Amino acid sequence: MNNKLHSIKEILLMGPGPSLPYPEVYDALGTPTLGHLDPKFIEIMDDIKAMLKVVFNTESDVIIPVSGTGSCGMEAALVNLIEPGDSVLVLENGVFGQRQYEIASRLHADVDILSFPWGTAVVPDEVEKALSKKKYKIVSMVHAETSTGVCNPAGAIGELTHSHGCCYILDTVTSLGGIPVEIDKWHVDASYSGTQKCLACPPGLSPLVLSSKAMEIIRSRKTKIPNWYLDMNLITQYWGGKQRAYHHTAPINMLYGLYQSLLLVTEETLAAVYKRHLDAHKFLVDELKELGLDMVVEEAYRLPMLNSIWIPSGVDDKSIRSRLLNEFFIEIGAGLGKFSGKVWRIGLMGNTARKENVSKLIRALHEVLK
Amino acid sequence: MNNKLHSIKEILLMGPGPSLPYPEVYDALGTPTLGHLDPKFIEIMDDIKAMLKVVFNTESDVIIPVSGTGSCGMEAALVNLIEPGDSVLVLENGVFGQRQYEIASRLHADVDILSFPWGTAVVPDEVEKALSKKKYKIVSMVHAETSTGVCNPAGAIGELTHSHGCCYILDTVTSLGGIPVEIDKWHVDASYSGTQKCLACPPGLSPLVLSSKAMEIIRSRKTKIPNWYLDMNLITQYWGGKQRAYHHTAPINMLYGLYQSLLLVTEETLAAVYKRHLDAHKFLVDELKELGLDMVVEEAYRLPMLNSIWIPSGVDDKSIRSRLLNEFFIEIGAGLGKFSGKVWRIGLMGNTARKENVSKLIRALHEVLK
Repeated sequence: MNNKLHSIKEILLMGPGPSLPYPEVYDALGTPTLGHLDPKFIEIMDDIKAMLKVVFNTESDVIIPVSGTGSCGMEAALVNLIEPGDSVLVLENGVFGQRQYEIASRLHADVDILSFPWGTAVVPDEVEKALSKKKYKIVSMVHAETSTGVCNPAGAIGELTHSHGCCYILDTVTSLGGIPVEIDKWHVDASYSGTQKCLACPPGLSPLVLSSKAMEIIRSRKTKIPNWYLDMNLITQYWGGKQRAYHHTAPINMLYGLYQSLLLVTEETLAAVYKRHLDAHKFLVDELKELGLDMVVEEAYRLPMLNSIWIPSGVDDKSIRSRLLNEFFIEIGAGLGKFSGKVWRIGLMGNTARKENVSKLIRALHEVLK
Repeated sequence: MNNKLHSIKEILLMGPGPSLPYPEVYDALGTPTLGHLDPKFIEIMDDIKAMLKVVFNTESDVIIPVSGTGSCGMEAALVNLIEPGDSVLVLENGVFGQRQYEIASRLHADVDILSFPWGTAVVPDEVEKALSKKKYKIVSMVHAETSTGVCNPAGAIGELTHSHGCCYILDTVTSLGGIPVEIDKWHVDASYSGTQKCLACPPGLSPLVLSSKAMEIIRSRKTKIPNWYLDMNLITQYWGGKQRAYHHTAPINMLYGLYQSLLLVTEETLAAVYKRHLDAHKFLVDELKELGLDMVVEEAYRLPMLNSIWIPSGVDDKSIRSRLLNEFFIEIGAGLGKFSGKVWRIGLMGNTARKENVSKLIRALHEVLK
């Protein structure tokens, strides 16, 4: 059989993720596999935790790269914290908020959803009203809504959930490593991310952080977590403490990749990485304007790493994306959910977030749209 | 920060998994990341499915490498097929049978467990008695029990579950690619495996196959699957059919690794791979006998790829394993569960399953045990 891997050439990944990995991360993936209880591997695990603390801006020691993709981290946060009958409020303004609602509903919780128009941000005043009307155990929101490009006010919502005594779950899949994520300052109790966005690592892991309050909720559950694979009572015994009790075999080589990307992010410094994302974004917005393309999201709520633009009328969505991919080796994202066929999503995440990549895209768009 | 990956040297992995990956698999992991909807990546997915059909010996088209490790595959098989109140029989003779029981119990099923002494095999006559006494919807068993080194009679149990109209779940984490696994011939309805055993790929994926009967059960559930991430009704829409609907971002580079390992396994041919495992095993058994070490499992039920031996009395378990690792760069496995401190587990899986590796281990054991 012809080995198809040999004919794969690098695509400039400017969609909603995966982003372009750092070259060093590709190398790291091929580091010799160690056993999951090898002392040298446990050192790598400890360093990953230490670096994730920096990126998440937290003092919490309960940080675990969940052995699955970002959606697995969402499942992990919700299935550990929610028991049947719990009152849950999901703040929704896109596909990933809807997904939180879907998962919470499957756990037989008493779930309410507070929706905001796609392309606009969650409004703290509306949330305050909802929290004043009913006592919620859990409030869940997406920080960077990948389906729309909206940045939700994670800090303001954290103030509200904190003052109302709620447990606060925040999706940081697309935000982590691209814009500030302040777990402790924002009173976040559980947050999950993904490796394939601003951390510039291939997909496969979901860094998850839990506050002491979240761990207290998990430890004192009345019912067993209906998901053995993601049971944080068990997994924390492998990722922390002295016994390093085997739970499941960790995805060793993917963790090498994450280690390497965190090393690069912390060496560049978070401030410089954020600036690189923002600079690329501003440049993109200016260039798109020149091309006559309109942004979906108002300036105040725009994410630097996920830029939604309206597909101009009369332009064929699929054929433009195909031409970008096949002729220019650039991938951009289609619209998702309600935005399918109406919106393109341009990702500037991780190693993709560089002005020279924006220039390549703009030149290509110029060709395919003329 | 000093990059710890650079000082990791190759360890001869002779534990219960991960095994030594093929060198080409390390290279494959670094293939440029493609988007999860890129047509070239979808070709890779299709080839993976086609090759897994060969390895699983099945005509089923529902074959999905679950985005998690082997235990995630176990969770996926059970959570999709079991509804609350379902009658489930778990056949147990080791840690992984216990794990099936634990997961099934968390799903609020009516679960019975039929246990057999560790180190011995499941006895079909006993199973026949249990199936005659009570009607079970699901019967679950581990083919190759990694905690003991026992090969259970998967074909004989399949005959019984088939004649009693049960849905048959078989764990093939350690057996797949090392000894024959006959999904269709054995009437298996759901089977999950792992990449880090006989497929000689790092951990991170769990190939899962479902029969048409299993898919019928899943499609006609009365309740939604309480696990969105592993919902096969949704995932099959990405891994099959024409729409390729996005569910979660697939672990692209891990799938490159699996593609490469399957290419190597199918090129070597399954018959030759099985023979390589068996030859290495026979050689190991002979050499261990010379060293005066006793096998835990009777010859008739021994797995070639997982060899349990009794730790000789007066020998310190941990210090011997540490010396093998630190002085000889060889990892062997500790005992698990009841066998902790009593048993060593020597893995001959995938790229590890070669006589020259056995020779290295025997020379090292000779040194550390003298």
